[in-house]
Amino acid sequence: MVAIGTELLLGQIVDSNSARIGQTLAANGFSSYLQLKVGDNHDRIVAALRLALEDADAVITSGGLGPTQDDITREAIAEVSGRRLHEDPGVRSVIEELFAARGRPMSANNYRQAMVPEGATVIEQRKGTAPGLIVPVGDKVIFALPGVPYELDDMLANEVLTELRLRRNDATVIRSRVLRTWGLGESRLAELMAPRFDELEGSNVTIAFLASGIEGVKVRFTVGTASESEALELLGREEERARQLLGDYVFGVDEDTLESVVARLAIAEHVSIAVAESLTGGMVASQLVRVPGASEWFRGGVVSYATAVKEQLLGVTASSVVSEDAARMMAEGVARLIGSDIGIATTGVAGPEMLEDQPVGTVWIGMSYRGRSEARKVQLLGDRERIRTYATATALDLIRLTLSGSGRGFTAF
Amino acid sequence: MVAIGTELLLGQIVDSNSARIGQTLAANGFSSYLQLKVGDNHDRIVAALRLALEDADAVITSGGLGPTQDDITREAIAEVSGRRLHEDPGVRSVIEELFAARGRPMSANNYRQAMVPEGATVIEQRKGTAPGLIVPVGDKVIFALPGVPYELDDMLANEVLTELRLRRNDATVIRSRVLRTWGLGESRLAELMAPRFDELEGSNVTIAFLASGIEGVKVRFTVGTASESEALELLGREEERARQLLGDYVFGVDEDTLESVVARLAIAEHVSIAVAESLTGGMVASQLVRVPGASEWFRGGVVSYATAVKEQLLGVTASSVVSEDAARMMAEGVARLIGSDIGIATTGVAGPEMLEDQPVGTVWIGMSYRGRSEARKVQLLGDRERIRTYATATALDLIRLTLSGSGRGFTAF
Repeated sequence: MVAIGTELLLGQIVDSNSARIGQTLAANGFSSYLQLKVGDNHDRIVAALRLALEDADAVITSGGLGPTQDDITREAIAEVSGRRLHEDPGVRSVIEELFAARGRPMSANNYRQAMVPEGATVIEQRKGTAPGLIVPVGDKVIFALPGVPYELDDMLANEVLTELRLRRNDATVIRSRVLRTWGLGESRLAELMAPRFDELEGSNVTIAFLASGIEGVKVRFTVGTASESEALELLGREEERARQLLGDYVFGVDEDTLESVVARLAIAEHVSIAVAESLTGGMVASQLVRVPGASEWFRGGVVSYATAVKEQLLGVTASSVVSEDAARMMAEGVARLIGSDIGIATTGVAGPEMLEDQPVGTVWIGMSYRGRSEARKVQLLGDRERIRTYATATALDLIRLTLSGSGRGFTAF
Repeated sequence: MVAIGTELLLGQIVDSNSARIGQTLAANGFSSYLQLKVGDNHDRIVAALRLALEDADAVITSGGLGPTQDDITREAIAEVSGRRLHEDPGVRSVIEELFAARGRPMSANNYRQAMVPEGATVIEQRKGTAPGLIVPVGDKVIFALPGVPYELDDMLANEVLTELRLRRNDATVIRSRVLRTWGLGESRLAELMAPRFDELEGSNVTIAFLASGIEGVKVRFTVGTASESEALELLGREEERARQLLGDYVFGVDEDTLESVVARLAIAEHVSIAVAESLTGGMVASQLVRVPGASEWFRGGVVSYATAVKEQLLGVTASSVVSEDAARMMAEGVARLIGSDIGIATTGVAGPEMLEDQPVGTVWIGMSYRGRSEARKVQLLGDRERIRTYATATALDLIRLTLSGSGRGFTAF
């Protein structure tokens, strides 16, 4: 893939086209080798196309097909493919009709869009004014698509995939599945998975780890097989084996999130949840509310940032607001105040200053349920924002573990 | 720039690093020629690095520095630079200390991160476990940065820019300033700025617009001059002119955020704030708490997600929970309950379903202050998450406008 446009290099636009093209290709079993972003510079576009064609059978470009002088993708492709540009009468008349229909005058520049490498197939423009191009280069091919996402997506889903399927010789089906984990670093996960890694060496299954910050570490399995059913069977086998190795550090699959899993457990257990937050300041509640239909099990919460709010509203009498007692009392207090089955509490030191002589990163997470309460201390690293987000994810994970009966969750209930 | 990771090619992660690197380089007067994304494949990483080095004086890589077997950036750079990898004792001991501090066992894989090309300079890891590398290649240089955005940004802003400036031969001083705006789209901003755009044509000042979603639209001025003082004078002049054209749609400069501006105003006005949130579910509170020292003016809040919580805790008696009355009563109720000068409330329909026959995206924002209250309706577009985040930013902006006495804010107080 070659994305063309100086605005991409300057970061004025994030190139989301390449990611979507990558997803579409992967979902249809085509491998992606390389993606390039290059400015509106003829020699660099030519060099990028040549590099991409070295390794790959097909290259998709996006952008640089517009009517202005800095839209030079056509010329670069003509040079790389050794084909001359000529005016395509069909494209010219479509552009003229489009302008007539809009009642707008056409400028000389607009005719540039009718210039097409000889021997190329035109992908007719449907929504914009830029036609796409399919340009053979020896036994390889360049697809030139407009940079506007909806025009690009439309041509990709139709002409490009059709042509690619025609050109594909084998019938391999490629599918992948992502296991979502929380609580282990990437290297520890890799160690736990090492036995399976070794067994799969040279097979049609690959494993990749994706450290995703607040989203935990993702473990992705990709299989290439002869049929859809075989792919699903293999993925099922790998998921099962990975769950044996990783235990309940796996919290979900593919689109699952910590909050969606908490939601599922709360609904299954018929429990309602309320939260009392100090250092996380509403972030735990806000994450829970991301789940559509949260009102079924989430009742609300209190952001008890000032000490007086902890005391007066939640009935905290602990001498320290960053303590086991404070976290437990906050959890009990909010369940009582809001009228929920479960109360969750966070209190700690987000920084940048120490609090009550306790170091930055000290966090207590409390939970109350069935007339009892329990709290756990975690020590987190990083800046204020990182400590707050990791405290939030840790709290969600503790609800998950507790409701699913894991020995790693709270055990008082 | 070379972004490394198969997950990028598959579109499982959108490579936002390259765009941010491009912005930072542009803001500091460095040109970007080419950006590549390449999978975890040794030969392709090597080819990408070689291509990038052909044209450019420096190459920045992101990703592939982690501890697992598919993190192979170190090896590829060693090959391209013709340098052997050796274990760096300093890096090794930092990693060991980090694991000791966390009380976690270290795996053999983690030691891979201490492997460094001979002659390279190590950029010490501050937040994560991956050190960065500065590797000379002839008279050119490769900077290897981790893929995790906050680690990358930190090293880019410090070691990378410092080294790039040292290597730059000309004495032009390049400085930039970003005006932060909220409330206007990119095209409307460009229209308002058009007169200045024309006047600056061909001068040493450039203007760029960066649509940044929940962070609003940024307007960046970059100047190239002979001295620091001249640069600052020019930027001051441009800021003043832009503020004349854009009025109080400008909320701040450079590192300012809506919440940091609210904090400054609250401190200046000696007022305390509490929030009552329904559809935003804690996000307004959580944004306010991002500001260090928030306890000085932020007291806390109530996430009144369930209707019963709105009624019993906040005293809402309105017949509809998505209404002007409900928003006003929530704001009054939370100020009374928490004991703050100002109460802020959000209630609305985040979707995916309609609520009380009101369409998705209907949001009421309420404020109480000095014994009075007022509410305003906004209609937002997008999915659940977008509606919640835009409602949050709109609420913060309304506090800002009101406290700064703008006619666009609430006017009842």
